Amino acid sequence: MSVSPGSSLRLIRERRPLVHQITNYVVMNETANATLALGALPVMAHAREEVEQMAAAAAALVLNIGTLSEPWIESMILAGKAANAAGVPVVLDPVGAGATRFRTETAERIIHELSVSVVRGNAGEIATLAGQEAEMRGVDSIGVSVPVWEIAKSAARLFGCVVSVTGPVDRVSDGESSLSVANGHELLGVVTGTGCMSTAITGCFLAVKPEAPLEAAAEALAAFGVAAEDAALGANGPGTFHAALYDALYNLDPDTLDGRARIS
Amino acid sequence: MSVSPGSSLRLIRERRPLVHQITNYVVMNETANATLALGALPVMAHAREEVEQMAAAAAALVLNIGTLSEPWIESMILAGKAANAAGVPVVLDPVGAGATRFRTETAERIIHELSVSVVRGNAGEIATLAGQEAEMRGVDSIGVSVPVWEIAKSAARLFGCVVSVTGPVDRVSDGESSLSVANGHELLGVVTGTGCMSTAITGCFLAVKPEAPLEAAAEALAAFGVAAEDAALGANGPGTFHAALYDALYNLDPDTLDGRARIS
Amino acid sequence: MSVSPGSSLRLIRERRPLVHQITNYVVMNETANATLALGALPVMAHAREEVEQMAAAAAALVLNIGTLSEPWIESMILAGKAANAAGVPVVLDPVGAGATRFRTETAERIIHELSVSVVRGNAGEIATLAGQEAEMRGVDSIGVSVPVWEIAKSAARLFGCVVSVTGPVDRVSDGESSLSVANGHELLGVVTGTGCMSTAITGCFLAVKPEAPLEAAAEALAAFGVAAEDAALGANGPGTFHAALYDALYNLDPDTLDGRARIS
Repeated sequence: MSVSPGSSLRLIRERRPLVHQITNYVVMNETANATLALGALPVMAHAREEVEQMAAAAAALVLNIGTLSEPWIESMILAGKAANAAGVPVVLDPVGAGATRFRTETAERIIHELSVSVVRGNAGEIATLAGQEAEMRGVDSIGVSVPVWEIAKSAARLFGCVVSVTGPVDRVSDGESSLSVANGHELLGVVTGTGCMSTAITGCFLAVKPEAPLEAAAEALAAFGVAAEDAALGANGPGTFHAALYDALYNLDPDTLDGRARIS
Repeated sequence: MSVSPGSSLRLIRERRPLVHQITNYVVMNETANATLALGALPVMAHAREEVEQMAAAAAALVLNIGTLSEPWIESMILAGKAANAAGVPVVLDPVGAGATRFRTETAERIIHELSVSVVRGNAGEIATLAGQEAEMRGVDSIGVSVPVWEIAKSAARLFGCVVSVTGPVDRVSDGESSLSVANGHELLGVVTGTGCMSTAITGCFLAVKPEAPLEAAAEALAAFGVAAEDAALGANGPGTFHAALYDALYNLDPDTLDGRARIS
Repeated sequence: MSVSPGSSLRLIRERRPLVHQITNYVVMNETANATLALGALPVMAHAREEVEQMAAAAAALVLNIGTLSEPWIESMILAGKAANAAGVPVVLDPVGAGATRFRTETAERIIHELSVSVVRGNAGEIATLAGQEAEMRGVDSIGVSVPVWEIAKSAARLFGCVVSVTGPVDRVSDGESSLSVANGHELLGVVTGTGCMSTAITGCFLAVKPEAPLEAAAEALAAFGVAAEDAALGANGPGTFHAALYDALYNLDPDTLDGRARIS
């Protein structure tokens, strides 16, 4: 399967896949807007009464544990099982794994009880889940003890799925093959929810390329990174950058995206 | 009762009515900011311990089922009954009716148990509730089988209240009389929560014109549509459009609004 | 202890303190982004399973009752006790105290059961909690019966902590000494959550100056007010002002901040 973020973006805009997101309160608006700006359709639904029906009707399911509580975990498991049964790919964002036992254990539970296609997190979150040492400060990764490409690879083997570790250079691995993505901008670190957006966009790409999660995950990070580069051009700081980021996702050009993507 | 969005806007800015909103997690910030920018005062409160007191003190109550769960439904019913008892007009946004049984049934329950003044939704949501065929993808309307003006009219008769169906041209009906509103901009479809904002703004207009819900609903959609037209002028995409939309609501000129409103 | 917002801002950017926020659904994204833009690290966590661990690991805890419900109150109390035990300073924002009995009583409960360092609210909220007459419309203060500096002082004595009352001129008091802060801009009143942001930023300053809550609280309001002044310069209304506010917080210059702060 070849890597072509431009071709996948074209498919997203043609098909407008529904991406069901059970995510945290902080970023719901932001991940919905990123999904829309890219060209897909977001839907947020978390009630146990409806998550199975919604997940089964979607083209991808995104689970994000950023503001956890017990009823939401139950809904994530219900939705995930319905997605698995319907062949809908599942993406997990283990926000803050390593910061509290509750988050670490919940992320582990989701990985074990569901068939997850892609896990997307920062170095500290993924290292924690892979059993490696990491220092977290809240949901931010402060330090890890092994190189990021190694974290991605060992986590992918342990979880049995594709793992994306985002940072200055993103690393995506399925345990055998690995890809690096060098797009992005440092202002992403000053806007909350940009990691969550990259997970939502991973869901969008996976929705049109479910048979190739490694490639879809790398394409998503490249597309998001290129948009961030565009958004930074006229920005005076994180506020104007944030607004420009949706403009940039909306204006991403499928014809030039492959040439700008720094995937290797 | 004559139609004059400019006169109603002037009243909103003079009286600063309190608009109590029990709405979804995705758009709370956005509908609060749209309410403030227009000139009214928003308040978000959903706890059963306080919704009756808050609704009775408000000038309008907006119920929005975008991210439902059982406790929130109970609070919506409690708040709605308190609003009804106090003579406070109620607006309903049946987000995603037709997408899941849970949403369809909840919207129906609210319409039946409460006295609602205006229901505002997209074509698929309203058609579903009116018993007509519709295709929903998540909370987006993909297709309906009858003309939109007919959906609005038959729904208004069935619900016994005013119904606003928004789309490229909005249709507002009380079952007898109908109004069309042709203001707006296509970028509204690329920002999440703009439908919910139009519902919140319907609440603001209804707060100062409760005796004329048909006119108030049409005026609200015209005012919001004119603001969207202004916001689109300098926008590079959905992010800058979104920020400019609040500026445009804030800068709406009551003196020119009637002339710019395309209500017929 | 001298007053120097520039020195404290420099410390915030060096140390990047973790500020744990249990806040309302409406403004979570906004207060997280304000915290990040200033230079600190926000974390939102509300589950009883994790709030004690998170609060004890933080450098400050911010409690905000803007969209209350019973489980969240329990989590606030649990988190607050863990913070108290760990010596982590606690800030309270009593959003809407005076608007409903539920909010007034919850704010009182938090003040009584926890050791709070700073309470930050508008005149109506603080006057209500201090037993003075006040008129609230939702979460907005419409009128109070005594001068604001007197409200701050008497509330500080009653609560036994520092109290910040924000408005056209902010008043901060510990019951003995008082400070006024005259920075800010009227557009702050047209964007929801700017009061909550000022509370979050109070948490950031308190995180690096916990031994001097009076000075930290005044410095925070001055820094936020200066950022608002900068943001207003190129704004066309509340939407572009809101985006520019994060830019301005990010670009605040510690070297000129003391000279621009209007603290007396």
